[in-house]
Amino acid sequence: MACRLVIVSRAVSPLAVDSVGTAGRGSRVGARRDSCMDGERMWASCFPSSLPHSTQTVTDHLSRARRISNGQGLHGAQAQFVRVPLAEATLLKIPVVVTDDEALLLGDIFSTGYFCAENGLTALRDQTPQEAVVVVVGCGPVGIMAVVAARDLGCTNVYAVDSVKERLELAERFGATPVHLHEGDPVGTVKKATDGRGADVVLEVVGAHDALSLAYELLRPAGILSSVGVHTAPEFPFTPSQGYDKNLTYRSGRCPSRAMMERLLPVLEARKYDIAAIVSHHVGLDQAVEMYRRFEGKVDGCTKVVFRPWE
Amino acid sequence: MACRLVIVSRAVSPLAVDSVGTAGRGSRVGARRDSCMDGERMWASCFPSSLPHSTQTVTDHLSRARRISNGQGLHGAQAQFVRVPLAEATLLKIPVVVTDDEALLLGDIFSTGYFCAENGLTALRDQTPQEAVVVVVGCGPVGIMAVVAARDLGCTNVYAVDSVKERLELAERFGATPVHLHEGDPVGTVKKATDGRGADVVLEVVGAHDALSLAYELLRPAGILSSVGVHTAPEFPFTPSQGYDKNLTYRSGRCPSRAMMERLLPVLEARKYDIAAIVSHHVGLDQAVEMYRRFEGKVDGCTKVVFRPWE
Repeated sequence: MACRLVIVSRAVSPLAVDSVGTAGRGSRVGARRDSCMDGERMWASCFPSSLPHSTQTVTDHLSRARRISNGQGLHGAQAQFVRVPLAEATLLKIPVVVTDDEALLLGDIFSTGYFCAENGLTALRDQTPQEAVVVVVGCGPVGIMAVVAARDLGCTNVYAVDSVKERLELAERFGATPVHLHEGDPVGTVKKATDGRGADVVLEVVGAHDALSLAYELLRPAGILSSVGVHTAPEFPFTPSQGYDKNLTYRSGRCPSRAMMERLLPVLEARKYDIAAIVSHHVGLDQAVEMYRRFEGKVDGCTKVVFRPWE
Repeated sequence: MACRLVIVSRAVSPLAVDSVGTAGRGSRVGARRDSCMDGERMWASCFPSSLPHSTQTVTDHLSRARRISNGQGLHGAQAQFVRVPLAEATLLKIPVVVTDDEALLLGDIFSTGYFCAENGLTALRDQTPQEAVVVVVGCGPVGIMAVVAARDLGCTNVYAVDSVKERLELAERFGATPVHLHEGDPVGTVKKATDGRGADVVLEVVGAHDALSLAYELLRPAGILSSVGVHTAPEFPFTPSQGYDKNLTYRSGRCPSRAMMERLLPVLEARKYDIAAIVSHHVGLDQAVEMYRRFEGKVDGCTKVVFRPWE
C-alpha cells in the first residue's frame, strides 16, 4: 500500500513540502474536486507549483511563489498523510506502468539528475553529447540519475567519481566508467581520456566545496560545469579570474521538478532504465534514524532508502 | 599611413603581444613567404594563434599555447613595428572596405563585445533574442560593442548602464536604452520593463566587483550572466548558494579573437554598423600618457583612443 496524499488545492499561500519526492494515492479533501480522483496514484514533487509547466525552466520559488522553510509553512512529506499545497498544479497522475518507487524518484532525484545533465549538455557548442567527455562528481542517488540522464541524452563517454564501492557499481551498471576518488586518479584518468584537455562537461551533485573544486579541476578550457549541489560554503573554490582564464560556463540551480517530471514521464513509461535499482532499503519510519545514520555513513550498501510510514 | 607589421612566422614559442588589437601593413621578414605579401593590410589580434579557427571557441592560451606575460615574451603592440608570433595563423588580410580603425577594433574590442553578447544569448533556452531583455553593464568600448552585437543578434530590448554621459550617448546611438548608473535607477528600470522579473541576459564588461554585483542583481531567476570583464577581486559577489537560488548561468572568459575576427568580418564588410564611431581621438604616442589619464578619468569625451606611433 502506498501512502495517502491528503490533497488541498488552492492553498492560501504556496507552501513548500520539505522532502524529496512523494508518491501516493490521493484522497480528495480540497475544494477543487476536479483536480484528482479518490484513490488515483499521484505524484508530488517536494516543491509545489502554481504555473503552467510545459516550458517552465524555473521552480515556483524562483518566480511567483517563495520557498518557505525554517519552521514556517508545512514540512515533512515522509508521512502517511500529506497536505499538498496547490495540488491542482502540483500533482500528476502516475501511469500504471510506473512503479511507486519510480514515481518517488521522479519527483526530485531523477528529475534533478536529469536537470543537471541537461544543463550541462545543452550548453555544448562545438560538440554533440556523443562527442563529449562527461564526468559526474558524486554518485549518490542524484549522481546515479545524472549518469542515466547523460546516457539518455546521447553521451557515450561518462565517468563517475565517488569513494563508495556500491555507488560506483551502480554508476557502472548505468553505463558510466567508475573512478574511485581516492584509490583511482580522477584528474589523471580524465586527462588521459581527453589528450590532456580535461572533461567537456562536469556534473557536480554533491554540494561540498571539495566536490566543486574537483569539478573545476576536471574541466577543460571552455567546458561546462553544471552544479545541482546545495552549497553552504560562502565562497566558490575558484576566483572570477580563474573562471575567466578557463572560459568557464557555470550553471547551477534547483530543478524545476514539476516541469521535469512531466517531461521525463515518457522515459519511465518506455521502461528504458531501471532507476529504482538505486533503492537499497524499504523500511518503516521507526527505522528512520538508523537509516539516516547508515546513509550518512555510507555503510551497509545503503544507496537509497524509501520510507513506508504505514508499515 | 598605418603602422608597419614586421611579420615573423613560426616563432619558437607562442608569444603574446600585450595590447588590444593591431592593424597595419605587412613587411615580410619571416621564413614563410607565402603567408602574406609585402604591403598588404593585415589584422593581428592581441593574442597569437596557432590552431585552425573556424570552430575554435577558445583562445590559444587555453589550449596548446600558454599566455606569456609579466615581463616574459614580447610586449607592446602600440608601436610602429611589431613582431607577430605565429603570424601565418594569427594574421588576417583586411578587405579594402574595412577601415584601419575598424580593423583595429575587430582584433579585440568588437570581437570581445560580440563574444560576450553571443555567450549570453546562445544560452537562452525558452526565449529568442528578440524576446529577451538584455542589459549591458558598462559602456566603455567593449560595452558599446556588446550593444552592437546584441542588436546584430536580434535583440530589440537592450539597456545600457554607465555613469559617463558620452558613453551612454554612444550606447543609445547603437540602439540601447541608456540608464545612468547613479542618476537613473538600473534595477528599478529593468524590473519595470520585465514585470518585476529582472533581465534575461546581463552582459558584464567592466571587470569590477561592483559591476558583477549589479549584474547579478539585475538578473532574473534562471537568467544568464555573461562576463568578459577581467576581474582581480578574489571572490565572486555572490555565493554558490545565491547562484543556486537564482538558477544562475554564468559564462565568462577571454574572447577567442582570431576565430571571432574571421566570423565578424562579414558584419564589417556589410557596413552595417559604424563601429569606429566610438573612436574619439587619434593621437601620436607622445600624447599617450595624457590620453591614458583622460580615458581613466572619463573626461573630455574620451571614449576610445587610437595611437598613431608614426605621427
